[in-house]
Amino acid sequence: MTMDVTAPARTIRAGFVGGGFMAAVHSRAARAAGAALVGGSSSSAERAREAAGRLGLDHGFGSLDELLADPAIDVVHVCTPNTTHARIVRAALEAGKHVICEKPLATDSRDAHELTELAAARGLVAAVPFVYRYHPMAREARSILTDGAAGRIVSVHGSYLQDWLATPHDDDWRVDSTQGGPSRAFADIGSHLVDLLEFTTGDRVVRLNALTRTVFGARATNTDIATEDLVAVVVELAGGAIGTLLVSQVAPGHKNGLVLELGGTEASVRFEQERPETLWVGRTGVTSILERDPARLSPDAARLSRVPAGHPMGYQDAFNAFVADTYATISGERPEGLPTFDDGLRAVRVTEAVLASAASGTWAEVAA
Amino acid sequence: MTMDVTAPARTIRAGFVGGGFMAAVHSRAARAAGAALVGGSSSSAERAREAAGRLGLDHGFGSLDELLADPAIDVVHVCTPNTTHARIVRAALEAGKHVICEKPLATDSRDAHELTELAAARGLVAAVPFVYRYHPMAREARSILTDGAAGRIVSVHGSYLQDWLATPHDDDWRVDSTQGGPSRAFADIGSHLVDLLEFTTGDRVVRLNALTRTVFGARATNTDIATEDLVAVVVELAGGAIGTLLVSQVAPGHKNGLVLELGGTEASVRFEQERPETLWVGRTGVTSILERDPARLSPDAARLSRVPAGHPMGYQDAFNAFVADTYATISGERPEGLPTFDDGLRAVRVTEAVLASAASGTWAEVAA
Amino acid sequence: MTMDVTAPARTIRAGFVGGGFMAAVHSRAARAAGAALVGGSSSSAERAREAAGRLGLDHGFGSLDELLADPAIDVVHVCTPNTTHARIVRAALEAGKHVICEKPLATDSRDAHELTELAAARGLVAAVPFVYRYHPMAREARSILTDGAAGRIVSVHGSYLQDWLATPHDDDWRVDSTQGGPSRAFADIGSHLVDLLEFTTGDRVVRLNALTRTVFGARATNTDIATEDLVAVVVELAGGAIGTLLVSQVAPGHKNGLVLELGGTEASVRFEQERPETLWVGRTGVTSILERDPARLSPDAARLSRVPAGHPMGYQDAFNAFVADTYATISGERPEGLPTFDDGLRAVRVTEAVLASAASGTWAEVAA
Amino acid sequence: MTMDVTAPARTIRAGFVGGGFMAAVHSRAARAAGAALVGGSSSSAERAREAAGRLGLDHGFGSLDELLADPAIDVVHVCTPNTTHARIVRAALEAGKHVICEKPLATDSRDAHELTELAAARGLVAAVPFVYRYHPMAREARSILTDGAAGRIVSVHGSYLQDWLATPHDDDWRVDSTQGGPSRAFADIGSHLVDLLEFTTGDRVVRLNALTRTVFGARATNTDIATEDLVAVVVELAGGAIGTLLVSQVAPGHKNGLVLELGGTEASVRFEQERPETLWVGRTGVTSILERDPARLSPDAARLSRVPAGHPMGYQDAFNAFVADTYATISGERPEGLPTFDDGLRAVRVTEAVLASAASGTWAEVAA
Repeated sequence: MTMDVTAPARTIRAGFVGGGFMAAVHSRAARAAGAALVGGSSSSAERAREAAGRLGLDHGFGSLDELLADPAIDVVHVCTPNTTHARIVRAALEAGKHVICEKPLATDSRDAHELTELAAARGLVAAVPFVYRYHPMAREARSILTDGAAGRIVSVHGSYLQDWLATPHDDDWRVDSTQGGPSRAFADIGSHLVDLLEFTTGDRVVRLNALTRTVFGARATNTDIATEDLVAVVVELAGGAIGTLLVSQVAPGHKNGLVLELGGTEASVRFEQERPETLWVGRTGVTSILERDPARLSPDAARLSRVPAGHPMGYQDAFNAFVADTYATISGERPEGLPTFDDGLRAVRVTEAVLASAASGTWAEVAA
Repeated sequence: MTMDVTAPARTIRAGFVGGGFMAAVHSRAARAAGAALVGGSSSSAERAREAAGRLGLDHGFGSLDELLADPAIDVVHVCTPNTTHARIVRAALEAGKHVICEKPLATDSRDAHELTELAAARGLVAAVPFVYRYHPMAREARSILTDGAAGRIVSVHGSYLQDWLATPHDDDWRVDSTQGGPSRAFADIGSHLVDLLEFTTGDRVVRLNALTRTVFGARATNTDIATEDLVAVVVELAGGAIGTLLVSQVAPGHKNGLVLELGGTEASVRFEQERPETLWVGRTGVTSILERDPARLSPDAARLSRVPAGHPMGYQDAFNAFVADTYATISGERPEGLPTFDDGLRAVRVTEAVLASAASGTWAEVAA
Repeated sequence: MTMDVTAPARTIRAGFVGGGFMAAVHSRAARAAGAALVGGSSSSAERAREAAGRLGLDHGFGSLDELLADPAIDVVHVCTPNTTHARIVRAALEAGKHVICEKPLATDSRDAHELTELAAARGLVAAVPFVYRYHPMAREARSILTDGAAGRIVSVHGSYLQDWLATPHDDDWRVDSTQGGPSRAFADIGSHLVDLLEFTTGDRVVRLNALTRTVFGARATNTDIATEDLVAVVVELAGGAIGTLLVSQVAPGHKNGLVLELGGTEASVRFEQERPETLWVGRTGVTSILERDPARLSPDAARLSRVPAGHPMGYQDAFNAFVADTYATISGERPEGLPTFDDGLRAVRVTEAVLASAASGTWAEVAA
Repeated sequence: MTMDVTAPARTIRAGFVGGGFMAAVHSRAARAAGAALVGGSSSSAERAREAAGRLGLDHGFGSLDELLADPAIDVVHVCTPNTTHARIVRAALEAGKHVICEKPLATDSRDAHELTELAAARGLVAAVPFVYRYHPMAREARSILTDGAAGRIVSVHGSYLQDWLATPHDDDWRVDSTQGGPSRAFADIGSHLVDLLEFTTGDRVVRLNALTRTVFGARATNTDIATEDLVAVVVELAGGAIGTLLVSQVAPGHKNGLVLELGGTEASVRFEQERPETLWVGRTGVTSILERDPARLSPDAARLSRVPAGHPMGYQDAFNAFVADTYATISGERPEGLPTFDDGLRAVRVTEAVLASAASGTWAEVAA
C-alpha cells in the first residue's frame, strides 16, 4: 500500500514503567491518542500482569529490560518514584526509545543534564509532563502575555497549595527522600508553578530567596522526614519583574490550588488550575472573565479546545493533549509548547536554587 | 475458547451514525472505554470515509443499512438531527443492536414511547445521554437529596442559559423545526435541566405553566423560525415542592450555564454544570463548598471520580463515564443511574407539556 | 435672617414611630444626613424613653398624637408592623408631616392608593425605602439597561432567598397576618425584587402566574400561619420580556440573596444585593465585572459613590443615600430615582396579583 | 456632678486637620458616633471655611494653632500628608488633645516612637486607623486563629494590590517623598496588611527579605520619583510561620485588594477586604464560607455587626466603628482591639525593615 500523504500518522506503540495513579493517567492519555498500549513492566511478573490488567495494557513485562528489549515499543512512559527516574530514562534512551518521564526528571541537575544531552545526541523525543501548559486558557494567558497585550510584566503572584499531606496521618513515598529526592513540595508542585510562570511569560527566574519548613518531621510510616512541606520564595525575573511564590502541601482546604497572576503595565492576567476554563484579565477600566470559547481564542489555545465553551475541559483533557503532542512530535510534527527534558532540567535547577537559598539564608542565582 | 471468569468483559464494538460535534464526543468516549470503533455511516460513501478518518473509526459505511447489516457491531450511537432519531433507532433496534441515541429520543412522545417499548421487547440496552448525571458532584447532590440530609425538598431554582444562538447571525439546523422538531431550547437543554432535577431528587414534575418566546424569528439561513429561544416555567413536583425554571439560548455571557438549586427544609444544594467539581451546600448555620474528593464522597460519586480532588474532571470525563456505564450494562452489569429510553421518553413528555401550556396559557399536567 | 444662597439646606427635623431594627437603620441614616433627631413615639412613655435612648433621639413621645403635634418635626419615619402603616401614615400626612413609610406601604391597595392620593393632595414628600435602588451598581445597571446598551430586554431571572425563617423555631411578628398582612414573603422581599426589576429596566410586569407555599404552618409562637414562606412566579413584562421570580424565606444558606439578571439582545446584566460593589455584564464575546469605580460610572451611579472603588459600600450606605435623597426632596431638590408612595402602591398591587393568581390557579393581570 | 448611670457618655467634640478624602471619611464617622463636629483647620481661613462647609463642620479655623487653642475640642483627627503628621500630632498632644492620626503615624520610627511616648506620658488616647480590624469578619478570623481552632499557624499568604497608580498618568502627593515619606506602597497599604496579619494571629513578623520596584519613575506632575510602587517580601514570624507578602499599587484590575490567608495545622482562614462579609475557612474535609451572622459570631465580631447577615457592611461602617471605639476609649471604656500609636510605631518599624532589606539585599530583623 502506498502511503497517502493525508493518511493519519502510524500508530504509536507505548510502554509503561510504574503502576500507580500517574500510570493510569498516562495510559488513558495514550489510549485517547489512539496508541497501541503494548505493555508495562513492574518489579515482578505478577505485579506487571496485575498492572497491565488494571491499566488495560496488552502485556505485563516482568522487568524493565524485557520491556526495553521489545522492538514493538516506540515510547516509554516513566511513572516510578523520583529517585529511579534517571536510571530508567537512561536505559530507555540507550535502548533507542522515546521517553515521557514524570517530573522531576531527576533528583539532581547533573543527572538531568546528562539525560537531556543523551536524548539530544540520540535524536529521541524526550518530554516531561508539565501538563498545566495544556489547559487552553494557560495557552491564552501565554498569548496575551507574550504578544504585549498586558504590557511589560512587572509582578508575579504565584501559589500552589495542597492539603493531601496536611495532617501527620497523611503519608506517601514522596516524603521519603530516598524515594522522593532532596526536595519534596517544591520539586513536586513548585516546579509546575515555575514552569507555568516561565512558559506563559517567556521570561526566566534569575534570582530567588527562599524559606522552607518541614511542618511534620514524622508521619505515619516515615518518621524522620527531611524534605520540606512548605516553601516561601521571593523571585526576580530576567525581565525585571519581582514577585512571590508560596508552595505548600500542608494547606487545609486547598486541593490542587495552583494560582498564578502576572501583573503587567497594561493588564493583569490570572490563571487558576482548579478553574481552568476561564482567565481573569484585570485592567484599570474593567475586569474581564475570558471563557474558553474556541471561536475567540488565540490559535494555540483554540487548537487545544476539544469541546465548545461551557463544556468543562479538565486535567485528563490536558494530559491527553500533552501525550498527543508528544506522539505527534515522535511522528515528525512540531506542535507548539511541548515541555521537553530541557524544561525538566530547568525545573531541577530552580529547585536546587530554592534548597540552596533556604540552606544558606542568602540569595541564590538560578543557573541558566 | 473458554471464558475465564476473571477475564475482562469482551470488547464492545461500536458503530456511529452522524459525523458532527456530538459524534466526536461519542467516539472519544467509546475509545476511552476500550471499544472497537468499527465504523460510521453517512449519507454517502465519501462523507462516511471522511467522517471515519476524522473520528478515527475503522470503516466508513455508505449507508445506515450497510452499517446495521454488519454483525460485528454491538451498539449504535445515533448522533444525527433530531427528526431522524426515531427512524434510525427503530431500524437499529430491529437489527438487534443496542442503541445510544442523542436527545431528544424522538420529537413526539408517541414515537419515543414506541421505541422504548421496542427496546424493552427486544431486551436491548437503550440509553440517552443525560450526561450531567455523570458529574460526580451531581451524584453527590443526589445522595444528599435522596438520603434526607437536606430534609424535605420544598423549592426548585433552575436555569439553563446559553448564548451560542444569542444573535440573529447565529444559526444551526436545530432552529429548523423540520430537523430539530417542534421544540428547540427546551428539548435541547431544558430537557437536561428537568432530567437532572428529577434524577437528583427522585421526585417528578407533575404540573407546569410556561411562557415561551422566539426572540429571533429569522436567522442567517433559517428565516421563518417557529421554535422557541427562551422558556420561563413555574413547576410543581409530586412531593409538593414548587419552583422556577428559566431556559434560554439567547442569554449573552452564558456558555452552558445549567444551574440547579434544590431547597430543602434542612439544607439547600446547588450544582453548576460549568463548575462541576464542587457542590454548594447551604445551611442556616454555615455554607459549605464540597470538593470532589473521592475519599469523602458517597460511593456512587466516588465511583465516578477518576482523578484526585483538585484535578478538574469535565464534560468529556462525564461522557466517558456514561458510555462506559452503557457498555457495562451491555456486558451484563447494572451500574447505578444509567439514563435509558424511559428517561428519554420522560423528557419528550415534559417538553410536550411545556409547549402545550405555552400554547394554551393554562397549566399542563405532565404525563406520568 | 437673609438666606445665603450657598448656605446648606436647613436642617431636617425627624421623628420616628417604632423602635425595632429598622428604626435603628432609619435613625442612623437621618443622623448621617445631618438631621435633628427630634424624637420617637411608642405605645408607652416608658418604651418611648427607652427607644429614644437606644436610638440616640432627643425625646421620647408617649403617643403618636403627641409626636405629630410637635411642630418641630418635619418628617415622620414609620417603622411599625405592616398592618399599622395605613393608620399612622394617614395621621402623619393629615398633620402635615412628610413621611417615610416602611414597605409594604399598606396591606391592601385601596389603603395604599388613598395614602398616595392624600400625600399628593397635601403636597407632601412621601417615600418608601426600596433601598436597593441606592446601591450605586443598581443605578449603573439601570443606566445600561435603559440607554439601550444591553439591547432589547427579553428575559428576567430573579430570586430573593433568605433563611432567617428557615426552621420552624424561627418566628417573628411578620408571620402573623394580623400584624404582617395577607402576604408575607412576597410583600416583604418579593416587593423589593419587583421594584428593582421595574426600576432598572423602566419596564413593567403586566401578567404573572404564581404558586405559593406555607412550608411551616406553625412556628414557635404563631401556630396557625396563613401567609406564604415561598413563592414561584412566571412573569411577562409590558415590553415583551418573560421570566421567573423565586422568593423564599425558607432557603437554608441564603441570608439576603436578592439576585436579578436581565437578559438583553446585546448583553445580560446581573446585580446581586449581597455583592453590591460589582455588576456582572455578560456578552457573547466577553464577560465583564464592573467595579463601583466613581471615575467610570454613569452620573447617577457616581453621585451615590461616597468612597473609592474597592472600599465596600453596603446596606447602611444605601439607606443613608435614600434618606438623604428624601430629605433633599423635602428641601426642594429633585434627586433621581426616589421611591415614592406611587412605588409603594405599585408593590401592593403586584403582591395582590401574586396572591390572586396563586388562589385561582390562573394568570393575573397587574393593575397599572 | 453626679453621673447618672444610664446617661449616655458625654458628647465627644472633634476637630479635623486636613480636608481631603480621608477627612470626609473621618467626619462621617464622627457624626455617626454622635460627636459634635466643632471644626477643621486648613492652611488659610478661606480653605478652612470651604472644607468646613463641605464636611459639615461647625467652624473653619484658619490655622492649626487656632484649632488647638479651642478648649471645646477633645480630639483631633489628623488627615494631612504623611510628612506633616509628626509635627501636627506633637502639637495636638502638647495641647492636651486626644489624637487620631492617619497612617503612617510618622515617616521615621524615631518620630513615631517619640509621639507614642508623648501620648503615654500625657495619658491621652492616641489611635491610628488600621481600620480593617473593624470588619466583623476580621475579628472572627482573629477569634478562630487565636483560640487555636486553626491549629498552629505555619504559613502566611498575603497580598495588597491596587491599580489607582497603575498608569504613568496617575499621580498623587503620596508619590512625592517630600510629602509621602521614604516609602509609599508599603507605608500606605503594606502597613495595613502587616497590621491585619499581626492583629488576627497575635504573632509578629521578626525577619523579612524584600525586593522593591519603582515601576514608574516619572508621573504626570512628579517626575523624579524615588518611592516604590511594588514590594515582594518573604517573612518569618516569631511563632515559626513563614510566608509571602506582595504589595502593589500598579496592579491593573485590583482596586483595594487586601487578601490575607493564614494556614494553620487544622484550618486555613482567608479574609478579603473587598468581600468583608464572609470568611473562607478551609479544612481538609470541607471548606466553609462563614457569613457575618451576628447570632453565630464570636462576641467581638458580633459586637461590630450592626445589621443582620446579608445586609452588607462596608468600609465606612468599619471606619465608624473604629472612631466610635476611639471615642469610647476617650470616655473611659476599653473596647477590644483599638489600634493605637503603639501599632502605628510598629508599622513604621516594619516599613523601615522592608526598605532596609531591599536596599541591602539581605535579611532585615524587625525591631520588637
